[in-house]
Amino acid sequence: MILELADIRIQPGKNAEFEAAIQHGVKTIIAQAAGFEGWKVNRSIESPDRYVLQIFWTKLEDHTEAFRNGPLFPQWRGIVGPFFAAPPVVEHFELVAKSD
Amino acid sequence: MILELADIRIQPGKNAEFEAAIQHGVKTIIAQAAGFEGWKVNRSIESPDRYVLQIFWTKLEDHTEAFRNGPLFPQWRGIVGPFFAAPPVVEHFELVAKSD
Repeated sequence: MILELADIRIQPGKNAEFEAAIQHGVKTIIAQAAGFEGWKVNRSIESPDRYVLQIFWTKLEDHTEAFRNGPLFPQWRGIVGPFFAAPPVVEHFELVAKSD
Repeated sequence: MILELADIRIQPGKNAEFEAAIQHGVKTIIAQAAGFEGWKVNRSIESPDRYVLQIFWTKLEDHTEAFRNGPLFPQWRGIVGPFFAAPPVVEHFELVAKSD
């Protein structure tokens, strides 16, 4: 399993609308993608315009190829993109270790 | 519950030693801290010198006050600090939503 971590900055003051939009976007669009295994979104306490979205994929290409090059990506960006203050910074991660 | 997210850059080529050290440091030092509830560490696929450490705390002050001002912090930094290429970037997060 691969972790996609997206570091997102939104336009100030749009928190409530963005939080509704991202939940709607994940549940209705990303959840349809092949290899989607789960998700989580957190808001920064120190930087309230910053969110970290974590999405779990079966394999890297489920996100980088199938999702990004398929029809779901523009639908997702149409829902959350209007809130972005900058392009999200996205990388993918492998698990090293975690608590039991 | 609060998520501490630490964005870590290590010295190139030290992955195996750092991964052993961070697991040792969390399990023997941070796990002793009041309010510690769990942890996870991931390595970036695109930037292999980048790690994201997630630590779950009962409340913000368990990390920002009790841990950082107490005797465990220098012990922890003694174990993982020698591998850092730069000071880690740390913020704290509240959960907005996640999958069931």
